[in-house]
Amino acid sequence: MIKTRLTERLGLKHPVIQAPMARAAGGKLAAAVSQAGGLGIIGGGYTDAEWIDAQFAEAGNSEVGCGFITWAMAKTPEVLTRTLERNPKAIFLSFADPEPFSDEIKTAGTAFICQIQKLEHAERAVECGADIIVAQGTEAGGHGAQRATMALVPEIADMIAQKSPDTLLCAAGGIGDGRGLAASLMLGADGVVVGSRFWASNEALVHEDILADAINKTGDNTVRTHVVDIIRELDWPRGYDCRVLTNAFTDRWHKDNQGLKGNLETEIPKWLNALEAGDADNASAIVGEITGLIHNVRPAADILEDMVSEAEDLLRKSSAFTV
Amino acid sequence: MIKTRLTERLGLKHPVIQAPMARAAGGKLAAAVSQAGGLGIIGGGYTDAEWIDAQFAEAGNSEVGCGFITWAMAKTPEVLTRTLERNPKAIFLSFADPEPFSDEIKTAGTAFICQIQKLEHAERAVECGADIIVAQGTEAGGHGAQRATMALVPEIADMIAQKSPDTLLCAAGGIGDGRGLAASLMLGADGVVVGSRFWASNEALVHEDILADAINKTGDNTVRTHVVDIIRELDWPRGYDCRVLTNAFTDRWHKDNQGLKGNLETEIPKWLNALEAGDADNASAIVGEITGLIHNVRPAADILEDMVSEAEDLLRKSSAFTV
Repeated sequence: MIKTRLTERLGLKHPVIQAPMARAAGGKLAAAVSQAGGLGIIGGGYTDAEWIDAQFAEAGNSEVGCGFITWAMAKTPEVLTRTLERNPKAIFLSFADPEPFSDEIKTAGTAFICQIQKLEHAERAVECGADIIVAQGTEAGGHGAQRATMALVPEIADMIAQKSPDTLLCAAGGIGDGRGLAASLMLGADGVVVGSRFWASNEALVHEDILADAINKTGDNTVRTHVVDIIRELDWPRGYDCRVLTNAFTDRWHKDNQGLKGNLETEIPKWLNALEAGDADNASAIVGEITGLIHNVRPAADILEDMVSEAEDLLRKSSAFTV
Repeated sequence: MIKTRLTERLGLKHPVIQAPMARAAGGKLAAAVSQAGGLGIIGGGYTDAEWIDAQFAEAGNSEVGCGFITWAMAKTPEVLTRTLERNPKAIFLSFADPEPFSDEIKTAGTAFICQIQKLEHAERAVECGADIIVAQGTEAGGHGAQRATMALVPEIADMIAQKSPDTLLCAAGGIGDGRGLAASLMLGADGVVVGSRFWASNEALVHEDILADAINKTGDNTVRTHVVDIIRELDWPRGYDCRVLTNAFTDRWHKDNQGLKGNLETEIPKWLNALEAGDADNASAIVGEITGLIHNVRPAADILEDMVSEAEDLLRKSSAFTV
């Protein structure tokens, strides 16, 4: 077992939070992770209240959190109120200023997690009273920005130590096994947020053919791109893009966003059909560089147990490096 | 002290290689790092034979290596031959296929270090008989590519374990203190390559005003860009760009490369004058995201000692995370 400020503060067995991957992280995955001793979080993403209700129902009595895309939440703040009535274990916000929601979340007494992509964001999250800051590097799957985990985490750790030492810090992006967890603790994190590795779990809401394709890809086969937002007609703010596996769709449009915008009428149904059919060449697998370390689809509990026990082993043996 | 396969194989006191930053890492810096127990490497970059001669002279009797930009070396292979006659401690190649030079380097018996930016490159480096592979993440300063350190290093470690277990692995990019060194060892590296932190040393060949500016910047203030290659009329192959501090020059041209190309006649002398004058707004500081952890300019030996002792402390104490 690994004990950190995160496990103590949240009463977790393991210092691992499952990333609230929109639509892919449903109640089943969140519950499996929480039951196994981590913190599972429903991927409330773009705040579809009906879907979120269904996922909380799926999670049953498990203590799970819920994550939202902050700029989407800003358009539907009632979804936050409704979610807080369920007494979630945590609210996890990412992508835009959390300030409009901080009072409501703090008042509810749930753990307030803010994911950030740069130092400037982290300073804002501290001002907003975040309990946990998640420093997400560019290697992460899905939406994110430019800074990478290795340099971002210690810089945020230093800022927190100076301005708000009781705030916790988790690393996200590029963490797929015990090595990444142990490394994150060395960088000054209190725990990690893991997306892609749980995306490739039995409990995630991902088409099996998409998963079968992804586990054969290497970390060289991903790209940060706007095409998955253009095709879904999602109006993301500047500064964010989305890491996906490269395929025929990204090869065709990644360098021709204007072309894609001009062909949405034919491309949208094609993409949606591909997604429905699990056609990995033409739909998009939202996964990070760590895909190169993922060679199988497993139960979330097994993923978590192995990650922690590998990290524990590394941490126990690490003094052997010293002489 | 930290002992790894790297320290044993190369007979080093510390598992730290100083990155061969072109022009900035001269003989004085390389010698200081080697004398302090790391491996110092002259930044032979674009293979200016006269400059390299002067730097080896500056290094005196210290056991230093020499690094080259592989595609530049391909145009002037005689510089490799000439350098090998000096019995360098290592030859460090980066950016392009090392194959044309591998036989000559292996025959000379010097340590053959290949820096790579993706899995595909690493597989090629193994085929070419590299003794040490350096997995360089996108957070690094200077030239590089897209993949980030946190996910790249364990993926390369797995490939090496399978295909060539005697090959050593170093992490580069985002490593500026003992936290980065300790984290790299957890990720499966045998050591680290450190650029930016040594760039901000008393021995590096960098204008003091550029340094004074850089130590006040955060990791949010860098960008991967082509503008520093365009302004220097360097014909870099596709797939690489160069991380620098953002300033008036990058603000003006980073999103208008064509505009810069159309204004080289006025822009080149302006940029060169700024570089000469140490004008941080208009010249370019070639430094990585780790700049956010650098708050001073220090002797290289002190930087190295502190990095190693901080890492040693973290590694010794890391079993305290386990219960």
